[in-house]
Amino acid sequence: MKIKICTIGRLKEKFLIDGVNEYLKRIKPFAKVEVAEIPECRTLEEEGAKLLAQVLRESFVIVLDVAGETLSSENFAEKIAALNLHGVSEITFIIGGAFGLSDEVRRAANFRLSFSPMTFTHQFARLILVEQIYRAFKIIRGEPYHY
Amino acid sequence: MKIKICTIGRLKEKFLIDGVNEYLKRIKPFAKVEVAEIPECRTLEEEGAKLLAQVLRESFVIVLDVAGETLSSENFAEKIAALNLHGVSEITFIIGGAFGLSDEVRRAANFRLSFSPMTFTHQFARLILVEQIYRAFKIIRGEPYHY
Repeated sequence: MKIKICTIGRLKEKFLIDGVNEYLKRIKPFAKVEVAEIPECRTLEEEGAKLLAQVLRESFVIVLDVAGETLSSENFAEKIAALNLHGVSEITFIIGGAFGLSDEVRRAANFRLSFSPMTFTHQFARLILVEQIYRAFKIIRGEPYHY
Repeated sequence: MKIKICTIGRLKEKFLIDGVNEYLKRIKPFAKVEVAEIPECRTLEEEGAKLLAQVLRESFVIVLDVAGETLSSENFAEKIAALNLHGVSEITFIIGGAFGLSDEVRRAANFRLSFSPMTFTHQFARLILVEQIYRAFKIIRGEPYHY
């Protein structure tokens, strides 16, 4: 399975860069992960269009959205396992930028995922996402989570 | 206002240490924060007793619990502001260890807070907590959140 994470802008804080890289390394045995960083644009719509330009037609699109659906880590893992079973070869996660999500991006979502009713920066959300993807693969494999 | 964070064990990952320290530094202008790290014990009950031994009688106790109540960041900020208004001088946050929370700790909670139905390690939860405390103070002050 391939996982693509489409984001706006480079990570600025060193601890976030280190944390995200650590989880990307841990995910490697389970999936091929690609991170696309779109430079910040002047408008939400422009950012949205550039994010969507990264999405392959056959990809299942999960948009991170505070107003989306919350899932337990177990249900998130089941969702990924079920997509894999149904022959989905790639999941694309989209994280909007500082301004949020354009309507076009929301409409393109096959699933809108909310981590929490709490707000996180889009940079912090990237760290939570890779941690939960790693956790999902550990759950799918029935392996203990040591970290 | 004083904030005390009672946790089990030392942070193991460098990016978590760096991230937590970064937010503790940012919280400093708003509140006095103390982190108490209880060494891991052999039983949940022992850990619980040692965590509770850290709690001052007049403190308002918020226990992090995946089965607790979720709040938006704005409501979390309102909660902190309201406690302050009502003369609460200290809020104690308790994060259980790898084995979870003892019943005694759950019973001692004035409020049980859940970040998400998703599971995080207790170490990762500490990072989310300090980020949300920092965010809460920025919301209370009406200051923009740049990070």
